[in-house]
Amino acid sequence: MFDSDFADRFVQLLRWRRDVRHFAPDAVPEQDMHELLTCAALAPSVGNSQPWRFVRLRSVTVRDALVAHVDEQNALAAERYQGQERYETYRKLKLHGLREAPELLAVFCDEKPEAGHGLGIATMPEALRYSCVTAIHTLWLTARLRGIGVGWVSILDPAAVRAMLDVPADWSLIALLCIGFPQDEFDTPELERQGWQLREPLLDRVFER
Amino acid sequence: MFDSDFADRFVQLLRWRRDVRHFAPDAVPEQDMHELLTCAALAPSVGNSQPWRFVRLRSVTVRDALVAHVDEQNALAAERYQGQERYETYRKLKLHGLREAPELLAVFCDEKPEAGHGLGIATMPEALRYSCVTAIHTLWLTARLRGIGVGWVSILDPAAVRAMLDVPADWSLIALLCIGFPQDEFDTPELERQGWQLREPLLDRVFER
Repeated sequence: MFDSDFADRFVQLLRWRRDVRHFAPDAVPEQDMHELLTCAALAPSVGNSQPWRFVRLRSVTVRDALVAHVDEQNALAAERYQGQERYETYRKLKLHGLREAPELLAVFCDEKPEAGHGLGIATMPEALRYSCVTAIHTLWLTARLRGIGVGWVSILDPAAVRAMLDVPADWSLIALLCIGFPQDEFDTPELERQGWQLREPLLDRVFER
Repeated sequence: MFDSDFADRFVQLLRWRRDVRHFAPDAVPEQDMHELLTCAALAPSVGNSQPWRFVRLRSVTVRDALVAHVDEQNALAAERYQGQERYETYRKLKLHGLREAPELLAVFCDEKPEAGHGLGIATMPEALRYSCVTAIHTLWLTARLRGIGVGWVSILDPAAVRAMLDVPADWSLIALLCIGFPQDEFDTPELERQGWQLREPLLDRVFER
């Protein structure tokens, strides 16, 4: 079903997927947003529990509150590098596009989903959260092949963001995503280009037992 | 770079990716295993920390111990359904292919990686584990387009498995993967075909704020 041409282009998709923080102002067509969410829901999930809950941000007030919260958390995170050579590099990094991205999407995990009937989570309840991550990653790749960029913001207090978005107590925040057309396209990570962290050799990651 | 033909086939890839528990005995060519791991390492990671650690299982003794452990955990998990109508359905489900799969791969997260220098994990250290999940999902899709199946086993005690594999204390187990050629191919989840859990409507998963 999948020939070597598809396989080659799939690797290109992986190579060109980026975490995007610089967005053009163009709106994401509604049809694209629909396709992104539809594809995300094809992701694997433990017990077929489909525990992902997608919250599209529409309110300008909530966006402003999120920006203020993340900027505050980022200032706190920066302090961890004070006195280190990396401090100035850190402060120069643009770590989110929450202000500019035309679409913000918060992804939550329902920690007590009815679907799946508890299969596969007796000992690893975190498999529910991992299922949500596969949905996010599916959305990310689906976006990229349409020329749409995604940025994952993790410099935030998940409980605070949950409260801002007023979602059920059993939902935990997995990711806050910025979605929109990237200003530029690169095949190397921004953190690599900015000298923060290079890609490491695969051999350092593979072991045998 | 990615035309509509590629986009269509990518959706087919998502639709045909399955959690595989029934494996043919054929070995996975070493070149494929190399490609799977190479592609997995192209996954996004918080701060470019690349916290994934892949452990390929070679030892028959360790495999036997893993099988015994998972079967035991599965028997305990089954007890949760006793007295319910689902009990018999659960007991009939084949939930892992640990005995037959030609390749077993344990994926760990290094919770204290040097790479990434702590970026993005001040408030959400779980982003490291989520990065490992994107690597697993990348490997999964890369396998599927080569006709190779992957099954994710989560019915296990992660600490016990970590001990069996004798890895550093800072590594946490994210997944135990069975890898090999599937006996059959399906475009619907096995849990759907067995009447455990159907796919639910996307609209139940999307909200606005």
